[in-house]
Amino acid sequence: MPIINVKMIAGRSQEKKQELVTVLTRETARILEVEPEWVTVVIDEYTRDNWASGGQLHSIKLGEGFGRQGTGK
Amino acid sequence: MPIINVKMIAGRSQEKKQELVTVLTRETARILEVEPEWVTVVIDEYTRDNWASGGQLHSIKLGEGFGRQGTGK
Amino acid sequence: MPIINVKMIAGRSQEKKQELVTVLTRETARILEVEPEWVTVVIDEYTRDNWASGGQLHSIKLGEGFGRQGTGK
Amino acid sequence: MPIINVKMIAGRSQEKKQELVTVLTRETARILEVEPEWVTVVIDEYTRDNWASGGQLHSIKLGEGFGRQGTGK
Amino acid sequence: MPIINVKMIAGRSQEKKQELVTVLTRETARILEVEPEWVTVVIDEYTRDNWASGGQLHSIKLGEGFGRQGTGK
Amino acid sequence: MPIINVKMIAGRSQEKKQELVTVLTRETARILEVEPEWVTVVIDEYTRDNWASGGQLHSIKLGEGFGRQGTGK
Repeated sequence: MPIINVKMIAGRSQEKKQELVTVLTRETARILEVEPEWVTVVIDEYTRDNWASGGQLHSIKLGEGFGRQGTGK
Repeated sequence: MPIINVKMIAGRSQEKKQELVTVLTRETARILEVEPEWVTVVIDEYTRDNWASGGQLHSIKLGEGFGRQGTGK
Repeated sequence: MPIINVKMIAGRSQEKKQELVTVLTRETARILEVEPEWVTVVIDEYTRDNWASGGQLHSIKLGEGFGRQGTGK
Repeated sequence: MPIINVKMIAGRSQEKKQELVTVLTRETARILEVEPEWVTVVIDEYTRDNWASGGQLHSIKLGEGFGRQGTGK
Repeated sequence: MPIINVKMIAGRSQEKKQELVTVLTRETARILEVEPEWVTVVIDEYTRDNWASGGQLHSIKLGEGFGRQGTGK
Repeated sequence: MPIINVKMIAGRSQEKKQELVTVLTRETARILEVEPEWVTVVIDEYTRDNWASGGQLHSIKLGEGFGRQGTGK
């Protein structure tokens, strides 16, 4: 521990995930003063059919995909 | 925020999910007196192999599918 | 099941929580076509020190309290 | 309730899951002195691309698969 | 990993929690064939004001307390 | 979204939490190419009575407190 859970839209590459995990682990360990080996990161990926804000599914609001390209998230 | 997470058996249509998200967002915003734009809904879908009650997987207890048809969930 | 988890700022009354639970259960059961008895709702309450958006703790951004009064959330 | 959530690497058979659910339900009900019928177990399965410890994705650290065989979990 | 999360009504003693953790860890490690040292258990405790089933808060349905005594969980 | 959940032992100051939230939000937004305003962070704090690894509660294994001082976590 600590345990970090990231919920995000599905589709990032293994490289992006590794980059995210590297930084989140290093910074959390540094700030909380724990060993990096104690930090676990688990990623939950969602299709846009399973994520909504403001009462609207992102598959309807934003279309397919992820990230900042035109639509974002 | 608030963040609403719904865990349910997989298989509902986009229309059903949008209907659920519309009502949960509107009612939560109304009762908690927050803006609907602040409400996030994320849906976790499960196969019946990954859900159990009373010590029995629902894939064994109920078979495939979801909803009230014969078995329920 | 389904299981509904609501994460929100701490401080609502038992009456507000019961109102929320009544509506979320009834509407979810109706839309998903399951029995209301199958619906579980668990509420996670957070102090504003433990909730952040846009990189800022809500205790710093919004001060104490909850709901729409002046700041909201 | 109680609700038990198990997060683990994907790939176990239905038989393994049923064995896990049987024991977790029975033992939790016994120790907490609740009825087994009140215990729900939900399993979240992860690919090794979505699980990291010590700042490294398990897909990179351990390769594919799960369990104790050579690499472990 | 694996990570086991138990959500239950607040109030069990440290001894009860240790008994639960001992058994859940040992059995999960045995069945999933992982080392016990890899198993993390985190317990979320809830007041009955924050738990509902069938559309009713347990603080209203069951009163205070926990376990099987008269009312149960 | 994304939504980042951090589970850790209770007791960090508001300043530490703000530092953590600042960095996790900035780095996640940068790597995932989303707006920082879309990133939500929620922190779950645990007493050591509610956290276990290797089958032992941290209140028993490590005593009270948190961080690296002598015991860690």
